[in-house]
Amino acid sequence: MKAVIFKQIGTIETVYRSKPEIQQPTDAIVKILHTSICGTDLHIMRGHVPTCTPGRILGHEGVGVIDALGPGVSNLKVGDHVLISCISGCGLCKHCRAGMPSHCLSGGWILGHTIDGTQAEYVRIPHAGSSLYPLPPSVDAQGAVALSDAFPTAYECAILPGKLKPGCTIAIVGAGPVGLAVLMLAKKLFSPRMILLVGKGQHRLNAAKGLGADHVLSSALGNDALTEMALAENNGDGFDLVVECVGIPQTFELCQKLLGLGGTITNVGVHGTKTDLHLQDLWAKNICITSRLVDTNTLNDLIGLVQSKMIDPELLISHRFKFSDITNAYELFNTGSSTNVLKVVISMD
Amino acid sequence: MKAVIFKQIGTIETVYRSKPEIQQPTDAIVKILHTSICGTDLHIMRGHVPTCTPGRILGHEGVGVIDALGPGVSNLKVGDHVLISCISGCGLCKHCRAGMPSHCLSGGWILGHTIDGTQAEYVRIPHAGSSLYPLPPSVDAQGAVALSDAFPTAYECAILPGKLKPGCTIAIVGAGPVGLAVLMLAKKLFSPRMILLVGKGQHRLNAAKGLGADHVLSSALGNDALTEMALAENNGDGFDLVVECVGIPQTFELCQKLLGLGGTITNVGVHGTKTDLHLQDLWAKNICITSRLVDTNTLNDLIGLVQSKMIDPELLISHRFKFSDITNAYELFNTGSSTNVLKVVISMD
Amino acid sequence: MKAVIFKQIGTIETVYRSKPEIQQPTDAIVKILHTSICGTDLHIMRGHVPTCTPGRILGHEGVGVIDALGPGVSNLKVGDHVLISCISGCGLCKHCRAGMPSHCLSGGWILGHTIDGTQAEYVRIPHAGSSLYPLPPSVDAQGAVALSDAFPTAYECAILPGKLKPGCTIAIVGAGPVGLAVLMLAKKLFSPRMILLVGKGQHRLNAAKGLGADHVLSSALGNDALTEMALAENNGDGFDLVVECVGIPQTFELCQKLLGLGGTITNVGVHGTKTDLHLQDLWAKNICITSRLVDTNTLNDLIGLVQSKMIDPELLISHRFKFSDITNAYELFNTGSSTNVLKVVISMD
Amino acid sequence: MKAVIFKQIGTIETVYRSKPEIQQPTDAIVKILHTSICGTDLHIMRGHVPTCTPGRILGHEGVGVIDALGPGVSNLKVGDHVLISCISGCGLCKHCRAGMPSHCLSGGWILGHTIDGTQAEYVRIPHAGSSLYPLPPSVDAQGAVALSDAFPTAYECAILPGKLKPGCTIAIVGAGPVGLAVLMLAKKLFSPRMILLVGKGQHRLNAAKGLGADHVLSSALGNDALTEMALAENNGDGFDLVVECVGIPQTFELCQKLLGLGGTITNVGVHGTKTDLHLQDLWAKNICITSRLVDTNTLNDLIGLVQSKMIDPELLISHRFKFSDITNAYELFNTGSSTNVLKVVISMD
Repeated sequence: MKAVIFKQIGTIETVYRSKPEIQQPTDAIVKILHTSICGTDLHIMRGHVPTCTPGRILGHEGVGVIDALGPGVSNLKVGDHVLISCISGCGLCKHCRAGMPSHCLSGGWILGHTIDGTQAEYVRIPHAGSSLYPLPPSVDAQGAVALSDAFPTAYECAILPGKLKPGCTIAIVGAGPVGLAVLMLAKKLFSPRMILLVGKGQHRLNAAKGLGADHVLSSALGNDALTEMALAENNGDGFDLVVECVGIPQTFELCQKLLGLGGTITNVGVHGTKTDLHLQDLWAKNICITSRLVDTNTLNDLIGLVQSKMIDPELLISHRFKFSDITNAYELFNTGSSTNVLKVVISMD
Repeated sequence: MKAVIFKQIGTIETVYRSKPEIQQPTDAIVKILHTSICGTDLHIMRGHVPTCTPGRILGHEGVGVIDALGPGVSNLKVGDHVLISCISGCGLCKHCRAGMPSHCLSGGWILGHTIDGTQAEYVRIPHAGSSLYPLPPSVDAQGAVALSDAFPTAYECAILPGKLKPGCTIAIVGAGPVGLAVLMLAKKLFSPRMILLVGKGQHRLNAAKGLGADHVLSSALGNDALTEMALAENNGDGFDLVVECVGIPQTFELCQKLLGLGGTITNVGVHGTKTDLHLQDLWAKNICITSRLVDTNTLNDLIGLVQSKMIDPELLISHRFKFSDITNAYELFNTGSSTNVLKVVISMD
Repeated sequence: MKAVIFKQIGTIETVYRSKPEIQQPTDAIVKILHTSICGTDLHIMRGHVPTCTPGRILGHEGVGVIDALGPGVSNLKVGDHVLISCISGCGLCKHCRAGMPSHCLSGGWILGHTIDGTQAEYVRIPHAGSSLYPLPPSVDAQGAVALSDAFPTAYECAILPGKLKPGCTIAIVGAGPVGLAVLMLAKKLFSPRMILLVGKGQHRLNAAKGLGADHVLSSALGNDALTEMALAENNGDGFDLVVECVGIPQTFELCQKLLGLGGTITNVGVHGTKTDLHLQDLWAKNICITSRLVDTNTLNDLIGLVQSKMIDPELLISHRFKFSDITNAYELFNTGSSTNVLKVVISMD
Repeated sequence: MKAVIFKQIGTIETVYRSKPEIQQPTDAIVKILHTSICGTDLHIMRGHVPTCTPGRILGHEGVGVIDALGPGVSNLKVGDHVLISCISGCGLCKHCRAGMPSHCLSGGWILGHTIDGTQAEYVRIPHAGSSLYPLPPSVDAQGAVALSDAFPTAYECAILPGKLKPGCTIAIVGAGPVGLAVLMLAKKLFSPRMILLVGKGQHRLNAAKGLGADHVLSSALGNDALTEMALAENNGDGFDLVVECVGIPQTFELCQKLLGLGGTITNVGVHGTKTDLHLQDLWAKNICITSRLVDTNTLNDLIGLVQSKMIDPELLISHRFKFSDITNAYELFNTGSSTNVLKVVISMD
């Protein structure tokens, strides 16, 4: 079968590999219909994820059809159309039982990381019973690739820990696919009074406007101007919820400046270095800061919301490619905020 | 009347002042029976609190008898024995109604700070109806001085945001009166499986042992050794709740190292500078960090717990002084962890 | 001044009374601009509220201007336009501090009940500081009469205890003003997947449709047919939240039949008799039933939601009267579901 | 093998059956070490559970050793000592994922009910991976039979939905094993100010006293006297939490009378008929009533609490029998509150 591997730092390559086989009774083999590229795949390509070694088939997002099942999987059957969770959780270890399959003792984020992933014609999914979700026919299979990771990340890491109340104010820092998913979920489902988004690239700011942001500001303005302008849009007050969707010290710094009395920062960004925490300013402001991995525990809820037409993940899909053309997809996705790319779908030929 | 003022940086002085009078209909004049010294009073003395200017009568803790009442106070009467909250809240502004009288638009922490305080024979209490609490006869009036600030701070800033579950593990960093109050509340009321305390001074570590700490470690060991030893006491795992009761970068750093998967840091320390936040280590650990001012919203609950003999604030009282001897009380309290001083009570002659 | 009193069972009357005066330092006298009639006023008229004795000026809803203030009220001033809460709470007693001013030891629902109310040119408001809310100019003063009782009741007694999640299903039993306020708040703010309303009177069912109900059913169909039809609209499943807005055994019975696994009944109806609870059916269904008085603790939030154009209480106003014409307003309101009356506004001449 | 079956109404019998075999890849065969008898087994014997048909091997409680495993069970191994949950949950269906394995679409309470149970030398456990819990050597295996059902029922159905706060008051109605488990958990873990227990049989009331009840009252006094005496012990106030552990209209009626303002009734009793709900008294009291099946989601937590010596299920064990003597165990257990029987352990010969 054809598969995309991390060849060496800076390079991916499409190669031929043998089709994966059931290894554990709880495995499934899924024939991929559609997959996608996540910012994390770019991090791997750039050599920032040392736990992912050369030769690994990339990808942790996708939709497919069950091709084979281990004898221990009782809740799925061959031929089922399924959404692949980016998290493989056994459902049974202490961390899974505590609601954190992202920290599963025999799973977590392993697809396209420590085992072969979804950018291939077939993928082996461990803990299949708890890591694959039947996809109803009424849910568009291409848009659903954004449900593997981007939407549950936005919901579980940014929105739910934010304890949103109707009429609250929200600042989102970062306008990539996850930042825009946060915006869509907040706007459509939680009745904030105002959402302000800070991001990079006019295309993305326009997209944010289209998805309902009340105000958008270009991160090029710098933190001081951004702070002044953002607070000015909120009568001089800080925001109830500030979401960090970038993962660098500068953006985390901005989040602290935008935080209001009694407010919460929910961190979604993947950070590679330490950052400053201005406790001298924040200690008395009744604040909360959260950071967590996505567990994809909310996938049933999210699929239901898509079925009910309450959210539409397809709105984040900017480009569609054939699998034979995946190198171009990578190249485009790598342009990030400098072009109009958001989420890409790569479909099998 | 006699009163203790902040004379200039490094100096307090007992002086004579005229007795305070009702200024607003919602004021009360309280004749002090017992007062105390808080770490914040030392900060003022050292010049670290620029909002407190020379000449100010110090003190925000105390128990007394109502001497006079403004016409707008309907729930108290002259002669009532009352506990004075360190927070004066109107109960009506947007922040008070949001449960944050610490940020009251016409109050907050003002006693012994921006208005004259409790280290005097009489004190004027603004917003008296919502800032004074009738003290039942069964509650020891001397021990109750620890209810003005130390215990509600421990309960509201360290314990309640920690969402303790029976069987959880707790690390407390800091063994001053508030750290020990956190220990007492957690141990007596929330059924942790294990409490470890890191602190300074053998007297205080002994006191912690006496109050039920399962393990105590001297902060003199340094963060690396402390981390290793603390985690070793917990099977190598981090703690569910880590409480910061010091307020310097080094202790906040230690808290991060002690934090377990899915755990919470509740910051109580008053920080004067920024600190490092190691998001590169913490971002994926499903963590929460909170920091807030005390609101003293729980004072009725705490008084009830004392009445029911479930907690005993007197256990934190190490020394008792006459008001005429308050200079010695300050000197002793200033020795901090190097002597056996914890909370001091200063009683009117 | 002119005022409407409960004369005797079955009769109200407009009479002349002397203008009320400040009695306590915490009182305010409010000149009424607009008032309304609540279902409870009809209950009083019919003799169902024995604690309300003949001669009492009726009314607990209204908007007005502060005419005089006791010396103990510091957060309001003469001339302020204010919303009158139906609940007068001191903010200081144990029940108020526990968040239940409805059970205030010196207040609660007393206006138009145990003290004279708002259907008069002037009204005395006890505990004015905590029971009057400044009304921003951008909020329509006529529509705001629905904020005195109907909307906070819907929010606090039906919606908030229901712990709504995006994508949930809701059944509302009762289409009076409160039932419709529940519908509006749920639809506009909480993103349910489906709302079904059962009510009486085609006008009200049409109004429910207009406010966004997905399905409406006439209560005339009887509980068996209603149950069958309601569950059919939800794929045979019970509902996540069922709201009881009537207050008789028959409707409470229906609520139990409509309740889904893991669901909640929030009771808003005022019940005069006991009802059957079918624990033989419900005990294993992981259910919750709540019932509470309105505390109007959410009024600041609700006023903010109106200011932000997120909800519009005016949509519940069906008729407007002059105060001189209040007898006709009572007659119309008394027709209930048999005409098109919803909430009426009565404005001073 | 030997097994105890429900022969016909009124009769159980020890018979020989063939040893169970793995039927599904997710099954385990457990060799029983210790089992117990639950009140539900008596209900079955009396013919009150029509879904349990004659010939069924009884029992849903027990501890054993894994004898055989289906190929789909990856988290256990032959020879493991395990606690058997009374609930068999697949962990994957919509109800399991919503935290309600008690309503598992292919499981729930099936052991000793719709499939053969634990009162036998061997038992087949479906969904073994998610329904068996490794038992640490430090946990007494005999006492652990009370962890299969009694303790998680007390914790999940009575305690956790009660949202206990330190200093609260609790009334428990019913002094059977579950009522006493509620008492032990509340007393040891949640710091109530006072626990009052109403029950039947002097032995059980004595046991309650021994487990820390502050007051015990005999249910023979009748609801009126009980109400008067119970409220008198609480200064005339109702209780914050009232737990119903009997399941008949008379006890549910008592619970309503004991309920305080803002309080909660958590129903644990299995009800066979409807009961009266006095909404005319309760509607305004800010109350909550919950009722649910046990999900045993808290078993890891409870096992941890036993390991830490924070609770001791053995304290509920009153008698120990050999399996060959199980008929006598049934006879004794059937005497209920008229003897000193609480929980019985039946150990394999």
